[in-house]
Amino acid sequence: MTEQTTTEHIARSDTAELTTPYTIISSDTHAGLPTELYRDYLATKHHAAFDRFMSEREAQLKAITDLGVRNEDFAANWFETNEEVLRSGWEVDRRDLELDKDGVVGEVIFPDADAVESRTCVPFGAGLGLSGDLDPELGLAGAQAHNRWLAELCKTSPERRRGVALIPITAALDDVLKEIRRIKADGLGAVMIPAMWMNQTPYHDRRYDPVWALCEELELPVVTHSGPADREAYGNHLGIYVTEVTWWPSRPLWFLLWSGVFERFPRLRFGVTEAGCWWVGNLLWFTDRLLLGSRGAAKLAGFEEIKLLPSEYFDRNCFIGASNTKRREIGMRYEIGIGNICWGNDFPHPEGTWPETLNILRKTFSDVPIAETRVMLGEAVADVYGFDLAALKPHAERVGVTPATLGQVNADGSAKDLTTKWAAAAEIGRHWLTGHDTGAAINPNAPAQEV
Amino acid sequence: MTEQTTTEHIARSDTAELTTPYTIISSDTHAGLPTELYRDYLATKHHAAFDRFMSEREAQLKAITDLGVRNEDFAANWFETNEEVLRSGWEVDRRDLELDKDGVVGEVIFPDADAVESRTCVPFGAGLGLSGDLDPELGLAGAQAHNRWLAELCKTSPERRRGVALIPITAALDDVLKEIRRIKADGLGAVMIPAMWMNQTPYHDRRYDPVWALCEELELPVVTHSGPADREAYGNHLGIYVTEVTWWPSRPLWFLLWSGVFERFPRLRFGVTEAGCWWVGNLLWFTDRLLLGSRGAAKLAGFEEIKLLPSEYFDRNCFIGASNTKRREIGMRYEIGIGNICWGNDFPHPEGTWPETLNILRKTFSDVPIAETRVMLGEAVADVYGFDLAALKPHAERVGVTPATLGQVNADGSAKDLTTKWAAAAEIGRHWLTGHDTGAAINPNAPAQEV
Repeated sequence: MTEQTTTEHIARSDTAELTTPYTIISSDTHAGLPTELYRDYLATKHHAAFDRFMSEREAQLKAITDLGVRNEDFAANWFETNEEVLRSGWEVDRRDLELDKDGVVGEVIFPDADAVESRTCVPFGAGLGLSGDLDPELGLAGAQAHNRWLAELCKTSPERRRGVALIPITAALDDVLKEIRRIKADGLGAVMIPAMWMNQTPYHDRRYDPVWALCEELELPVVTHSGPADREAYGNHLGIYVTEVTWWPSRPLWFLLWSGVFERFPRLRFGVTEAGCWWVGNLLWFTDRLLLGSRGAAKLAGFEEIKLLPSEYFDRNCFIGASNTKRREIGMRYEIGIGNICWGNDFPHPEGTWPETLNILRKTFSDVPIAETRVMLGEAVADVYGFDLAALKPHAERVGVTPATLGQVNADGSAKDLTTKWAAAAEIGRHWLTGHDTGAAINPNAPAQEV
Repeated sequence: MTEQTTTEHIARSDTAELTTPYTIISSDTHAGLPTELYRDYLATKHHAAFDRFMSEREAQLKAITDLGVRNEDFAANWFETNEEVLRSGWEVDRRDLELDKDGVVGEVIFPDADAVESRTCVPFGAGLGLSGDLDPELGLAGAQAHNRWLAELCKTSPERRRGVALIPITAALDDVLKEIRRIKADGLGAVMIPAMWMNQTPYHDRRYDPVWALCEELELPVVTHSGPADREAYGNHLGIYVTEVTWWPSRPLWFLLWSGVFERFPRLRFGVTEAGCWWVGNLLWFTDRLLLGSRGAAKLAGFEEIKLLPSEYFDRNCFIGASNTKRREIGMRYEIGIGNICWGNDFPHPEGTWPETLNILRKTFSDVPIAETRVMLGEAVADVYGFDLAALKPHAERVGVTPATLGQVNADGSAKDLTTKWAAAAEIGRHWLTGHDTGAAINPNAPAQEV
């Protein structure tokens, strides 16, 4: 990976490289109807249940307020200030306007446009909170309602959008497979599974093999998204929730890895979204060493299904929807794998980079090699989700974010040295595989920045 | 911390510093009786239950074999090869001999001397597997049996030993407090709590405040130890177990932190044992940023109980029994905090450094400043568990591990430059607090070593 990236970089370090616009694709945006409007996308037989669900909305709001996820003052101000612009959560023209202003030409769309008080939540809890303990029939019905609406949204400027279908895979297998085929035919581009199986069968189980097989066949990446967690254990301690909220959606990754799913389905893609990527280097180091140690066959046994190193499966099968990628994470990119990092703006959630994406990208990427930036801001996510970069080119040219926008060229437009400070880190890469004795290197004289 | 360590280092860089033996204290050893012998330490009323427990031993063995934790061939060879030496798990003279040979003069003793097939497991599952779903009465009875025996062991060469009492804090509060007072009076030096509360009340709950208050008052560090995990979810996939087995015992740390336990009990010490320390830097970065962000009072609310930064509580209240500390972790020490890292040999478990401790320490520490090595190999754990370094001095001199043993001086006995390569990392420290923009720095030209 290191060698390849370096060569690629050198080949591109010409004038065109310095001036060609970035094709920025967000691996993590959100769209959803105001909840009451999902009624029209539900089968009539579920309308009574939907009316009950709507009547329980106050209790749901109280629950997120108690945990501290919702702050009433902040919420009031948020909706007052952003009333118009938040309609971009479901109105496509406003949406494109906001994405353009934010420098983003493509998007991977998750549910729940409103993260402040769930005004656009999917019926029956089947949105970001999708989890194994939903009522199987209603959970699937709610998911379908959103999937139907989302497919309509994605049919506008389809080159810019990949809609992520909600698929509660712990429900009846036949229904699950049928819905996966349906959403593929309807133009959606990925499958979000519950981050937590809860009281259902864990994801190492072979019962899910038909799901992985179908997603591989239909070239639908399988993803989790942060949100679900062990909430009942936290009382009203928001800090516990936030500390763990990245772990739960990441957990299926090692359940699939160690149970041989990536061995049996070598073209399956699995991604973790909005759970950071700061944990990936440690995970790969830890699991690679475990497997290498097991090959010495000491105390432990039981890795017969695993033929490659965990880091090799990760490079081949996995990716990270890294959303608002932090400087610490950028510093870890040679361990994580540059091609595994898919930046995202989390539009239109307040914890994302929107509407300050360009300012934040400038802070985060101004000293990062341009070729690597192109990968993390667009090429990696295009590869995973099958965006057509040629089709996006006119949008990229219109929006016009270039290396100059991100501060990656000198004031006179000439090339900056963006490689020297990272050369050691690039050479070390995954130190446990490259014969180096410890982790990522950085330039200690780099200026203080957002971390 | 950085400044202090540097000053301390310079002050010590004299001849005495180069030749003074290390006082090596293992933060993680194991001792336990062959299970059948615990019968004599149980009250008569529990003998019938104990006989039933012993009769179920085959089923327990099968469970760990199915998960792959036990490999029959390895186990057979292990016991045949080490029959004599494994008696050091409960016979004190052999134990001291093994510790001496391994260079270790002090030890913090956890249960379960045998990690291969649990031949020395504590009755009723109350050993390393201590968890919230034990039968409250039997769990406490089993714990007491071990606590009684361990106190006897520690009365031999008490300056060398700190026994960790097993305290199932999810049991009846009065019984718990009574047992804590009893083990303190009986000479034990710390309290191990269940790593997982299971179906009992999570550790943020105020119901446990009397436990924390008493441990603070009696100067008993509270610790977890790796072992428990969500085993029912793993099927027979050992990789999943090993990948998660460090997370579950670490989890109570952020439950205590965010629920204000370290604010209410400022002298309480809490430690996580044999779960690595590679995750600490990320945790402190993530949680410090969360708290700093909350002070800006944006979307989130609810940190009223937290007055310090998480990293400040960590430095004051927490420590890591880092056992077989890896090079990657050594490279992270300026983020973790040198004084928070307590090395251990995990004696007599096969995954520890025993009986190769000196060779492994030479590989791991040969380029690490001597003053820092002294902290991680002994001074930090002495501070937490109250070892008397003066009383251990004769043992250290007899055992005779010096900086020369670890390759930290030149062949002619003169000082090596052990600081230049780490200077940048030391200066950066916790980059998010020191105005630097990313993580740990290393010397990329360092030779390949065990990672």
